[in-house]
Amino acid sequence: MKIIIEENYEKMSRVAANILLGKMYQNRRVNLAITAGSTPVKMYEYLVSDVKNKSYFDNVHYYNFDEIPFKQKKGYGVTMANLDNLFFKPAEIPESQIHPLDEKNYKNQDKRIEQDGGLDLILLGIGADGHYCGNLPGTTKFEDLTSYVGENATENMKDILLSEVGGDENERPEFYVTMGPKSVMQAKEIVLFATGKKKAAIIKQAFFGPITNDVPASLLQTHPNLTIILDQEAASELY
Amino acid sequence: MKIIIEENYEKMSRVAANILLGKMYQNRRVNLAITAGSTPVKMYEYLVSDVKNKSYFDNVHYYNFDEIPFKQKKGYGVTMANLDNLFFKPAEIPESQIHPLDEKNYKNQDKRIEQDGGLDLILLGIGADGHYCGNLPGTTKFEDLTSYVGENATENMKDILLSEVGGDENERPEFYVTMGPKSVMQAKEIVLFATGKKKAAIIKQAFFGPITNDVPASLLQTHPNLTIILDQEAASELY
Amino acid sequence: MKIIIEENYEKMSRVAANILLGKMYQNRRVNLAITAGSTPVKMYEYLVSDVKNKSYFDNVHYYNFDEIPFKQKKGYGVTMANLDNLFFKPAEIPESQIHPLDEKNYKNQDKRIEQDGGLDLILLGIGADGHYCGNLPGTTKFEDLTSYVGENATENMKDILLSEVGGDENERPEFYVTMGPKSVMQAKEIVLFATGKKKAAIIKQAFFGPITNDVPASLLQTHPNLTIILDQEAASELY
Amino acid sequence: MKIIIEENYEKMSRVAANILLGKMYQNRRVNLAITAGSTPVKMYEYLVSDVKNKSYFDNVHYYNFDEIPFKQKKGYGVTMANLDNLFFKPAEIPESQIHPLDEKNYKNQDKRIEQDGGLDLILLGIGADGHYCGNLPGTTKFEDLTSYVGENATENMKDILLSEVGGDENERPEFYVTMGPKSVMQAKEIVLFATGKKKAAIIKQAFFGPITNDVPASLLQTHPNLTIILDQEAASELY
Repeated sequence: MKIIIEENYEKMSRVAANILLGKMYQNRRVNLAITAGSTPVKMYEYLVSDVKNKSYFDNVHYYNFDEIPFKQKKGYGVTMANLDNLFFKPAEIPESQIHPLDEKNYKNQDKRIEQDGGLDLILLGIGADGHYCGNLPGTTKFEDLTSYVGENATENMKDILLSEVGGDENERPEFYVTMGPKSVMQAKEIVLFATGKKKAAIIKQAFFGPITNDVPASLLQTHPNLTIILDQEAASELY
Repeated sequence: MKIIIEENYEKMSRVAANILLGKMYQNRRVNLAITAGSTPVKMYEYLVSDVKNKSYFDNVHYYNFDEIPFKQKKGYGVTMANLDNLFFKPAEIPESQIHPLDEKNYKNQDKRIEQDGGLDLILLGIGADGHYCGNLPGTTKFEDLTSYVGENATENMKDILLSEVGGDENERPEFYVTMGPKSVMQAKEIVLFATGKKKAAIIKQAFFGPITNDVPASLLQTHPNLTIILDQEAASELY
Repeated sequence: MKIIIEENYEKMSRVAANILLGKMYQNRRVNLAITAGSTPVKMYEYLVSDVKNKSYFDNVHYYNFDEIPFKQKKGYGVTMANLDNLFFKPAEIPESQIHPLDEKNYKNQDKRIEQDGGLDLILLGIGADGHYCGNLPGTTKFEDLTSYVGENATENMKDILLSEVGGDENERPEFYVTMGPKSVMQAKEIVLFATGKKKAAIIKQAFFGPITNDVPASLLQTHPNLTIILDQEAASELY
Repeated sequence: MKIIIEENYEKMSRVAANILLGKMYQNRRVNLAITAGSTPVKMYEYLVSDVKNKSYFDNVHYYNFDEIPFKQKKGYGVTMANLDNLFFKPAEIPESQIHPLDEKNYKNQDKRIEQDGGLDLILLGIGADGHYCGNLPGTTKFEDLTSYVGENATENMKDILLSEVGGDENERPEFYVTMGPKSVMQAKEIVLFATGKKKAAIIKQAFFGPITNDVPASLLQTHPNLTIILDQEAASELY
């Protein structure tokens, strides 16, 4: 486990972008699974500027690792729509390099990634509850591969799903899909980043505390090639 | 996870030897952690014949991953004495390529291996209770690095320690040391082998069941580069 | 450059087989380019016994690196027919794991291998004239990728082609195709083996002498991951 | 061979810095050989800002690949003095991470690097005559490891040496030392960058022309992991 602590969110985001870029400059296919959400917003700003119109990155393939489908709207679900807005569209990534996970193909996700040569790197955020991807406490277990998580998986899952679609009851789905803990651990490298005081406690707990399904991200501390990037606030309980 | 099933113990042992040899033919330092016990007896017979007097294997370094010290006897403990008899002595491995873990240096084991460049491969057996190395149920936890395990760690630990030193009360130690689950997971590749009907149930449980500290080896199923070698009897509950 | 010297042809062949096997036990696609001819006969005997009926080797893909087409006979040329007899048929390798190079697809060979993920290992023999694959002195140059070599490439090329098809004028082709020096150097690992007194001089010249197109194999000494396996006779001029 | 073409010198320098950084964010020792001269000036500006005061880069070790000693002045020669000014001093790299090659230890350079685990990456510039490191036409040959090059190696070598020490006859050395072509090819990855119209012709000749000792850099086109970074002017003869 390598821990990188940067002064602030901007610098943390720059390091995350640099690590992704470092993987991408290769003369072979490179497979990256990347995260949606708010943590990566600045990182994608940097990446868009480094990646847009660069034909020498035609070797890089992108995967999402979870998806929350809209109940009625066609096309991308919540995760891919977000990635599309933050990165794929502004960086003009060709569709042939984007490999969506969704409710129709999730059962084949682990096999597909294996056949594509495996993930070179998976970039993760972490929730204050210790979740990463769609692996929330009480949903998946460490031994799970890519999974379907239903609206009754936990007590408040319906609320979470409603919130994920912006509070629109007409679009609240009955489930989502996510790469499971065992799927994520198969990546050759895991990078997890976090920003802000509100993540300080979970960072300490997940990476310096017991490994338990109650804190899904705690499993990641065993991966042979894990890097954690934090700003000073997120690192503030470590020392 | 790659599963290799061979007809019998001899063939399984040959495959295990081949996998080790495949790592060893390199033009750079190679670090292997290897197992003592009864499962590897035949494999070491093969290896001794392939390795003895081969100066081109001077790049290969060997580590033990646990040690049970004798209370009075000086020199190697139970594990290293066993490895010495099965492999190091008959294969005439130079001392400079052997890196014993013992009760005096165990606190530095993880750091030392990291500085040596990490383990390229760790070869493990498995107990019917799901233990590997000295990670018995109730002793270490998934988040543990190289650890000291005392005679009161479990109810029957004193008996286990007595049995390990051949029933000689004068030599029964009060503890042993072992690389912990997190230490083992840092290896670039994990190979685990098992033989015989008495291992069939635990193989199914550890690698196709839930990941829990009650079955220490169950964690290994998440490693990105795990190979399991079984004879047909050990595999008999898988299909 | 790692040099492995074994007592005799049988032991040299066993080491070559072991190195190939060591690459093959993986949980991902493995691409091997392998050599026809007389040097590998014993190695393939060993390999057939280790590989036949082993479904756990369904991840291994095989490539030939040169081909001499028959003028009239349909189907495989000289190289693939030889590999088929020595290895693919007796080991019952499924066709889906065999990727023939021939006169129809040679222009695409380098691109195809790159798209397949690159060669993990290429196993080469060496001729007394320093040739490997179809890279004979005076045919290809170091900067060549997979190439067409015509019957007028060198003074005695027509005789060579005649000899390759067993002296049957009706089958003598007007050319052959071969991966060029630059193609071969793209492999992640190169293994070259040689047996017998008649190879002793070229081994010294190619790997301890000047790098020149007159000795095509001399380029290989610059590869970052090269292993040479010799029996004592082939190594007899080294020390 | 991967070719990266950027609009201008600044962007080319940013990509070079990114590729180095991408190697550096690791949880293991990383060995980089880096170039002095004028091409990397901007890149080191970027790197200094990314590397200074970052304790998380304590795993990165630096090597120079050639050295021109001053005849009288003690301490660093021309290359290391330049690297010290451009990078080591402003980035405050601890001495323990800097491994100078000089006239006293050059015979051991290849062995030392091998024992340190090999070079993960070597960053090279190229001269208009096709030289890289101190491998000028007529000095070293492809088969050379780290070498001593005397003042009579070529007709104008005395002038070159004089120019390298700023025209001060009192400091003109009688030789320099350099990693040879075979040494450089042992690196796991080679990155070469070039800027400006005056490099356009040699870029075409070295990487798309014949491989010959007359153009030392031409050998590099055979390396299995080569990246070339150019600005548009340096790439202007490629298309």
